[in-house]
Amino acid sequence: MVSTGANLYHDTHFAIGLTMHVGSPFADDVQLRKEQIVRIYDIVFDYNVLLSTDAFYREVMKAPEFQRNMSTAEFHYRMGAYVREREKLLGSKRRSVLATAHEFGVPIYTSSPGDSSIGMNVAALALDGNKLSFDVLADVNETAAIVLAAKDGGGRSGVVLIGGGSPKNFVLQTEPQIQEVLGISEKGHDYFLQITDARPDTGGLSGATPGEAVSWGKVDPEALSETVVCYLDGTVGLPLLTAYALANHPPRPHKRLYDRRNELLDSLHRRYKDASEA
Amino acid sequence: MVSTGANLYHDTHFAIGLTMHVGSPFADDVQLRKEQIVRIYDIVFDYNVLLSTDAFYREVMKAPEFQRNMSTAEFHYRMGAYVREREKLLGSKRRSVLATAHEFGVPIYTSSPGDSSIGMNVAALALDGNKLSFDVLADVNETAAIVLAAKDGGGRSGVVLIGGGSPKNFVLQTEPQIQEVLGISEKGHDYFLQITDARPDTGGLSGATPGEAVSWGKVDPEALSETVVCYLDGTVGLPLLTAYALANHPPRPHKRLYDRRNELLDSLHRRYKDASEA
Amino acid sequence: MVSTGANLYHDTHFAIGLTMHVGSPFADDVQLRKEQIVRIYDIVFDYNVLLSTDAFYREVMKAPEFQRNMSTAEFHYRMGAYVREREKLLGSKRRSVLATAHEFGVPIYTSSPGDSSIGMNVAALALDGNKLSFDVLADVNETAAIVLAAKDGGGRSGVVLIGGGSPKNFVLQTEPQIQEVLGISEKGHDYFLQITDARPDTGGLSGATPGEAVSWGKVDPEALSETVVCYLDGTVGLPLLTAYALANHPPRPHKRLYDRRNELLDSLHRRYKDASEA
Amino acid sequence: MVSTGANLYHDTHFAIGLTMHVGSPFADDVQLRKEQIVRIYDIVFDYNVLLSTDAFYREVMKAPEFQRNMSTAEFHYRMGAYVREREKLLGSKRRSVLATAHEFGVPIYTSSPGDSSIGMNVAALALDGNKLSFDVLADVNETAAIVLAAKDGGGRSGVVLIGGGSPKNFVLQTEPQIQEVLGISEKGHDYFLQITDARPDTGGLSGATPGEAVSWGKVDPEALSETVVCYLDGTVGLPLLTAYALANHPPRPHKRLYDRRNELLDSLHRRYKDASEA
Repeated sequence: MVSTGANLYHDTHFAIGLTMHVGSPFADDVQLRKEQIVRIYDIVFDYNVLLSTDAFYREVMKAPEFQRNMSTAEFHYRMGAYVREREKLLGSKRRSVLATAHEFGVPIYTSSPGDSSIGMNVAALALDGNKLSFDVLADVNETAAIVLAAKDGGGRSGVVLIGGGSPKNFVLQTEPQIQEVLGISEKGHDYFLQITDARPDTGGLSGATPGEAVSWGKVDPEALSETVVCYLDGTVGLPLLTAYALANHPPRPHKRLYDRRNELLDSLHRRYKDASEA
Repeated sequence: MVSTGANLYHDTHFAIGLTMHVGSPFADDVQLRKEQIVRIYDIVFDYNVLLSTDAFYREVMKAPEFQRNMSTAEFHYRMGAYVREREKLLGSKRRSVLATAHEFGVPIYTSSPGDSSIGMNVAALALDGNKLSFDVLADVNETAAIVLAAKDGGGRSGVVLIGGGSPKNFVLQTEPQIQEVLGISEKGHDYFLQITDARPDTGGLSGATPGEAVSWGKVDPEALSETVVCYLDGTVGLPLLTAYALANHPPRPHKRLYDRRNELLDSLHRRYKDASEA
Repeated sequence: MVSTGANLYHDTHFAIGLTMHVGSPFADDVQLRKEQIVRIYDIVFDYNVLLSTDAFYREVMKAPEFQRNMSTAEFHYRMGAYVREREKLLGSKRRSVLATAHEFGVPIYTSSPGDSSIGMNVAALALDGNKLSFDVLADVNETAAIVLAAKDGGGRSGVVLIGGGSPKNFVLQTEPQIQEVLGISEKGHDYFLQITDARPDTGGLSGATPGEAVSWGKVDPEALSETVVCYLDGTVGLPLLTAYALANHPPRPHKRLYDRRNELLDSLHRRYKDASEA
Repeated sequence: MVSTGANLYHDTHFAIGLTMHVGSPFADDVQLRKEQIVRIYDIVFDYNVLLSTDAFYREVMKAPEFQRNMSTAEFHYRMGAYVREREKLLGSKRRSVLATAHEFGVPIYTSSPGDSSIGMNVAALALDGNKLSFDVLADVNETAAIVLAAKDGGGRSGVVLIGGGSPKNFVLQTEPQIQEVLGISEKGHDYFLQITDARPDTGGLSGATPGEAVSWGKVDPEALSETVVCYLDGTVGLPLLTAYALANHPPRPHKRLYDRRNELLDSLHRRYKDASEA
């Protein structure tokens, strides 16, 4: 999973007992600012929600286990343990993404680790001498390794894209990292499903079609006719898709890819060496 | 300046003598892939353009000056020197962004340093033992320091946003980094101009209005009535704006913010300490 | 109901035993044209489907009952009887809009009666001396009369807008017709629900907000906070809404507004006279 | 020219000495309604502007020359004479569309004559016994006749589409009216230029591509590669295009198509008879 930091940060509010409220996108923002109310489109919450969440993250990130450079997958996994503990303490019925991903060993990456309140707090701690920092190169190689491993023995890989932006590119660049940069022979992802409002004509990657991805080797040409782009709000499309999947498919064993990161990275390294020497 | 790596990477093609061509967004991408032609909406180019640009970046990034952790501003500045040299050698009339920013001391940040062919090549080199890596926390603090310095002595700051995505948030989060995270008293940016196709109703940050930014302290409430959002293709809006600015304003002395990074960061650090002790 | 002629025309294909097929929006249209295949986004069908439907409409419209000027509601009602008969003959399970509206006395208006294959065929028949023509002024007054009647005795009116365009304006202009033009005291529609992809910022009526409608008297200011605009594809939003309505509300008696047109129009006329003389 | 009635109606405000003002799309519409201010996105004006313009139209439309059924081209041409007279009287420097089109014999059609304040006022007058009504079938045949005449002797036709909606379809259906409905052999428009925000994926005609139009015979397949769709706000695109055209091309003699309507219609009629008998 690749997410912006903002999605993970704001999801944490609920996990640590804070609340957000339904508001209006047409609110008077000058008035909101005066009353210390923060707005995200039609969601409103108290400025203290930010301050409390910041304090939570900073407190946890001072722990000894965070005093080093690590991939964002490791960072999110370690944070997830603390978030989960807090959820249990509060008896919360709602499960946060970080805590759930921790429990099931799902690695969560972010392509822009400095770009969010999480990154901002890590940066502030760094001014104080804290040793936590992000290994973005590990993120690039680990995500490529996960894709390459999926292909082993005739396996298949696919991408599910809710929205667009930097996370979309980060997920898709796994194939060029394997083929174009590391020189390993590969054909592209086998499945491509995007739910987005971004249209191709702006020329940006958010709206780039599966066809364009084929021209880069990101998607297997033979898979193109089965790719799907759905121009829909993700808050409508994802629940429909999820309900359908849960209703039509029994649970599958967890892959626990987080636990296998080193093994997969070693395999990528070997394939890269083989390709370089060929 | 905050840019995606992709914009900087593809701009480099021209600087090192490679070419891209006008194509069609309706091309047959399976055929393009067969013929090793890569497409970005209505731009097409040979796959070798990627391989040659990758080789250029990797060769430069093996130099001793790149064998350490650095902010993306420093990385782009140092790369810019090599790109500029290559442009001079080729007698190119066209000036790349990296080379021009190097010459005029304009710091260029990227909010997602692993997310682009540049980041992919740095990651590949890391598998070989190369020591270059990105200090994303420095990026966060340096950009906040630049904004805080602009405000000194009653100065003003502004943001010009072409498009949206992670770079938009990274530019705007400078104010919450100053106020919410570092606890320094501040009021928000004084100018906000966005040219984008992203609408507010999707709820994402790309289309978030200046009003929403006011509720976060990103934009000064008193400046709200003068903010501008222009729903227009950036390739139409930016040239119009640039032509207008060049025609109506004499050149100003360069600020050379890149050269002043350490000084500005020291100042941010002091203000943070003062605020923490208050 | 206000519909474009195109929606009613293409819906008729199924009613008279013709078929349309799932295709691709990325088809080669020059090739399609050569093979006499017509495309509407991702729907394809044989050119003969148009010719046969044209022939069906022309044949019916030569009947004596169509040899005069009439409102589009009357035209669609009368056509609906023929379409229904054909459906019964074919034993079709699928019910067309025209036939169903005929059966339940739902008046269907079109705001642009010349703009569609239906209008084109009526125009062609006129070249041959056929006497059918459209009374667009009756459409304007009848739709206003329906709204005014809904308000009688403290009743309420509402608009459900799937898409935008001319039909949206035609539905909403009923209130200005009552208030601004006929001078009858009224406050605006009580409910406003739109499912559309049209955003306000283009300045057109398709994306105009309920708020803008309030400033015109089209929507009751007191109802504004309950209005809904849903930026969603109608093919997703309408089925969700319909399923919800059918699951949560028992059937209601039919209003058969078509049958009451003259009575409602008389009432509008009286109220207009009263207002003029006041 | 095919326009909505709304564009022509609101353009008339200036011609008869009324004013509209720059406002904000974020105004409080309930307050605006209380103060009798009407809003169109970021334009605001007094409710009396509507009442005065309505009165102007109604007064003119009571004249003997309007006491019959006529095409919208004739209606707009005749109205244009009155609007022009008023402009002269007021010494207005600004020229309205109706007055200018009258002067140069440019026929203006509307595809939805009942759908606008103009149509609403005509409908209200009809309740009083006024005899003016719209001949929508004449509109359909006249527009087809203009296109067919453009093709005579190897001539060429083209469409310039600013926006979309019903006017777009009305302009494009001229070719199916000629080919599919009247059975006259023809190949489609030679030029297609659209400036719009409507994307193809919604499936509507507003965003339908020139390719889709080729599959219908609306655009000549051989012309497809030269068609242009520009996803841009018309208020930006049209001035750029107009300035370019005026700067790069000397004035051409006026075609005065309005004056030639009967002749062109006769020619269409003859070609239709010939085709029917073949």
